[in-house]
Amino acid sequence: MIRDLRESDLTNGFLDTLRSLTIVGEINPDEMKKRFKEIDSDPNYIIRVAEVEGKIVSSATLVIEPKFIHNLGKVGHIEDAVTDQKFQGKGIATKIIQSLLEEAKKRGCYKTILDCDDELISFYEKINYDGRSFHKHGSCMRFDH
Amino acid sequence: MIRDLRESDLTNGFLDTLRSLTIVGEINPDEMKKRFKEIDSDPNYIIRVAEVEGKIVSSATLVIEPKFIHNLGKVGHIEDAVTDQKFQGKGIATKIIQSLLEEAKKRGCYKTILDCDDELISFYEKINYDGRSFHKHGSCMRFDH
Repeated sequence: MIRDLRESDLTNGFLDTLRSLTIVGEINPDEMKKRFKEIDSDPNYIIRVAEVEGKIVSSATLVIEPKFIHNLGKVGHIEDAVTDQKFQGKGIATKIIQSLLEEAKKRGCYKTILDCDDELISFYEKINYDGRSFHKHGSCMRFDH
Repeated sequence: MIRDLRESDLTNGFLDTLRSLTIVGEINPDEMKKRFKEIDSDPNYIIRVAEVEGKIVSSATLVIEPKFIHNLGKVGHIEDAVTDQKFQGKGIATKIIQSLLEEAKKRGCYKTILDCDDELISFYEKINYDGRSFHKHGSCMRFDH
């Protein structure tokens, strides 16, 4: 089942799933709830998850950015797309991303972008939605503070 | 002078500067003010501009994204960095981006990222702040709605 993140998901597979992507760290439960409320109260921030057998096994975030360019347009940013290693290769992340592309379209985004390692380019090129797909468009530059 | 965007800048060079970057379109003044208020009231959204001889000639945006990964970390996203064609090559955009890197650091971001065309990679690699600089880290994938 693909749906939006709920607070109870945080300790029911969501953080464990994120560990398949990168460092998560030891998180203070109160700080975690505070961060959930901050994100959940922002209408431009959507975390979508896949629940399989009562547990979160995949997740991706959509951040909607209002702009001045493109006739006061909006851009969708997909972040932190990940599937728990044990559930990879079943098309779960693809379904979440398609549902976020639908959300971005509904919200009036003229484009949706994401950054990925070069070995994932072909994965994203294969995701089809609305008869279209992602294509590589420039590079990501990173500054580590 | 490098400072945050004010409402009066919208019709004093800001939109004209954005036209050096991409399509802006014919914007309804009331809709434009509404968009300014929406952005200005969001503490995670900073538009920084350069004013030269009383007019805006350069601009870049920083969007701060709160995350669950990296110990409830935050990531800065630099968007829509642009200098009016007549003022390019004077280091103005570099100063704005350095000031946004300082802001991102102050707000606790562990990294700041941006997407750019491949011919601009060397421009961003040369921007120095805090003894560090940007480096290429993966690709940007784009979906056009």
